[in-house]
Amino acid sequence: METSLLLTDLYQLSMLHSYFRRGMEETAVFEFSVRSLPATRGFLVAAGLEQVVEYLETLHATPEDLAWVAASGRFDAEFVERLARLRFTGDLDAVPEGTLVFPDEPVLRVTAPLPEAQLVETRIVNLLHLQTLVASKAARCRVAAGDRHLVDFGLRRAHGAEAGLLAARAGWVGGLDGTATVLASARFGVPVSGTMAHSYVLAHESEQQAFADFARDRPNDVVLLLDTWDTERAAQTVVRLAPLLAREGIEIRGVRLDSGDLAAHARRVRDLLDRGGLPAVKIFASGNLDEHAIAELVAAGAPIDGFGVGTRLDTSADAPYLDCTYKLQEYAGVPRRKRSEGKATWPGRRQVFRRHAGDGTIAGDTVTLAGEPGDGTPLVQPVMRRGARVTWVPTAAESRAHALAQLATLPEGLRLLDATVPYPVEIGVALRELADRIDAGAP
Amino acid sequence: METSLLLTDLYQLSMLHSYFRRGMEETAVFEFSVRSLPATRGFLVAAGLEQVVEYLETLHATPEDLAWVAASGRFDAEFVERLARLRFTGDLDAVPEGTLVFPDEPVLRVTAPLPEAQLVETRIVNLLHLQTLVASKAARCRVAAGDRHLVDFGLRRAHGAEAGLLAARAGWVGGLDGTATVLASARFGVPVSGTMAHSYVLAHESEQQAFADFARDRPNDVVLLLDTWDTERAAQTVVRLAPLLAREGIEIRGVRLDSGDLAAHARRVRDLLDRGGLPAVKIFASGNLDEHAIAELVAAGAPIDGFGVGTRLDTSADAPYLDCTYKLQEYAGVPRRKRSEGKATWPGRRQVFRRHAGDGTIAGDTVTLAGEPGDGTPLVQPVMRRGARVTWVPTAAESRAHALAQLATLPEGLRLLDATVPYPVEIGVALRELADRIDAGAP
Repeated sequence: METSLLLTDLYQLSMLHSYFRRGMEETAVFEFSVRSLPATRGFLVAAGLEQVVEYLETLHATPEDLAWVAASGRFDAEFVERLARLRFTGDLDAVPEGTLVFPDEPVLRVTAPLPEAQLVETRIVNLLHLQTLVASKAARCRVAAGDRHLVDFGLRRAHGAEAGLLAARAGWVGGLDGTATVLASARFGVPVSGTMAHSYVLAHESEQQAFADFARDRPNDVVLLLDTWDTERAAQTVVRLAPLLAREGIEIRGVRLDSGDLAAHARRVRDLLDRGGLPAVKIFASGNLDEHAIAELVAAGAPIDGFGVGTRLDTSADAPYLDCTYKLQEYAGVPRRKRSEGKATWPGRRQVFRRHAGDGTIAGDTVTLAGEPGDGTPLVQPVMRRGARVTWVPTAAESRAHALAQLATLPEGLRLLDATVPYPVEIGVALRELADRIDAGAP
Repeated sequence: METSLLLTDLYQLSMLHSYFRRGMEETAVFEFSVRSLPATRGFLVAAGLEQVVEYLETLHATPEDLAWVAASGRFDAEFVERLARLRFTGDLDAVPEGTLVFPDEPVLRVTAPLPEAQLVETRIVNLLHLQTLVASKAARCRVAAGDRHLVDFGLRRAHGAEAGLLAARAGWVGGLDGTATVLASARFGVPVSGTMAHSYVLAHESEQQAFADFARDRPNDVVLLLDTWDTERAAQTVVRLAPLLAREGIEIRGVRLDSGDLAAHARRVRDLLDRGGLPAVKIFASGNLDEHAIAELVAAGAPIDGFGVGTRLDTSADAPYLDCTYKLQEYAGVPRRKRSEGKATWPGRRQVFRRHAGDGTIAGDTVTLAGEPGDGTPLVQPVMRRGARVTWVPTAAESRAHALAQLATLPEGLRLLDATVPYPVEIGVALRELADRIDAGAP
């Protein structure tokens, strides 16, 4: 993970310079929210909190950072000195990772001296945005796949190294079973798995030799890739090879299809395997998959036991960004609100209460001022106080368990892949009144 | 930049394990190509070569990497030992960064012992894919903007830290003027600029006070954000404030619009500024911009001097991934080719020749076997031999100059934002014959 303090926008440093000079270091409250959902989404799964906490705990300028600032010609020595001493000393409140969230709801709140709370905007948005985006997409894949196996294959076309790592983490949090990305296992404990590439087959003299070599060298997890030349012919090779390997105590666990009409290939391959006495060999499919393709294959009754989802998951291809914000809600005890066209925000420190129906499904949320009473369960919880954790910050594994439990509370309409009726999010009376009071007295 | 050797797919390690055991360490040739263009693209700008070279030069397993591999239970001690000694000892050939490239063309070639060439697949694709994607999008923004100022604002919604950094770099290579991302300036020398955020205005008692404070604290680059509450009222505040600041020797360089109908606001603000005696104050616009929005504003004659492009650039929102591959072309002297449905590849070591028309515009390419004669300029050039650079690898600044010169060679049809007639890329006779020979003798 990149930890340089300079991983921010230049205007943050410019504003900090001004804040320091003027002693504008009163307490500021910023909140992260998603303004609206992409047309194709009915819900989001909040993710990335663990990385935000780590970022805030370790925030500091390195000697290299300070050298760049000093040499840039844009800042004075006093600013460099202030930046050298800057640490995050504030409070953090957030909804737990893995929680379902909706537009206009506070997902995370930073309460800190203005310069600190301002500086961290860029990276906090960067971390929460990506992981929430991918965890939400992964949750849709999970809904589509039922209990079939789901693995992230997306590192190569993820947007850089960190995107690949965090997509593997967020995908797991959102409900996948694991990833192919080795480093995500080492860093975050995401279960890792993999098969073979076309190049392995191509580097051999024959497909049968490639399959045999792989099975003998990697006997504990034999999954063979069938589509280098001809999928069904490769399946016949598997059938011929299996008894030879069985005599050596090697079991072929599965085969992978990666191109063509996956449902048709899966049916023909299933038939060949079954008739060849290999009913236990599983069929995995990959290649341009997303929640819609998975849902179609499942609906068609394709005999596929697991899916590899890659590019379209890691880039959230149908909706590669969220309209999210980190906005000043209060400064020096005074609530604040911008009213830019189409981008107005609700002021003050906010809380969201969630109500549930008798069957446990979620029934509606109310966003109101923090401290006001509400109907249901408050979602925003204390995480850090004065720069230090005051609660256990769940790991990816724990957040995944929470997310899966949350997915079970989705009412039927929200589980559909084509978003239909939006989930009801009301704005509480106290919050509306505050907004009206600010507007009445605004410049 | 992430440098762990474990930033790869598990199957690469599984295949390496098998290759090592069997002594499959003959020379392999892999090539990176883009299989097809997104519907909205007529050309690509190759980018990311500098990062690939740095990755290959420094490739090694750290003690932590090896500890994970050893503890994973998936590999034997001999494999750990081989991994510990693994370095990149091969050759690299590539088209220079900033060069226009088209489908089916070799963009980069790795020639190395099979295990090395295989292992690096994931990260090479990861690096080239992102930067080529963003540089190509940036080039389209440059075409749309003419010579107006163009700055990347996208870090916060880029997919993680590295995506933000590399998007800032690739955006600059593709023709932008700079970025707001400070670390991209420190790391890659990208010119950095910035204005102020709404929070700066909101944290002040009044907009006028905010503008005055900012101008006095940051007098060398005063660009004021107008849309916190009411864009035209803010412009009137600028007009009132300018003479007061001028007496202090402070010049307001520009204003920024960030919401609403940008063309309409720009006209009204331009009028207010001109009538207020501020014809030299520039107008910058931002907010959900991409090449199409820029082209519309330019076509409408909106008096806008510069654009901030953010999320839609950094995520390449309309086409967030490329259909790109890194495929085995040859092993142990024998050309290879896969024929998966819809994913067949051309075999062997390839070169691409580019022809130009009399006016200097590009007229057509031919992809053929390396070493065969061709008509035009060969694009694939030696970069590394035996693991070391044999040529100067251009910096981002140099690649940007090359890319801008390349953009000038686009014929009119390819410069259009709505891709029309595809650029002609022929497959040479020698390459077709080789593919036929392989198919005739294929299993």
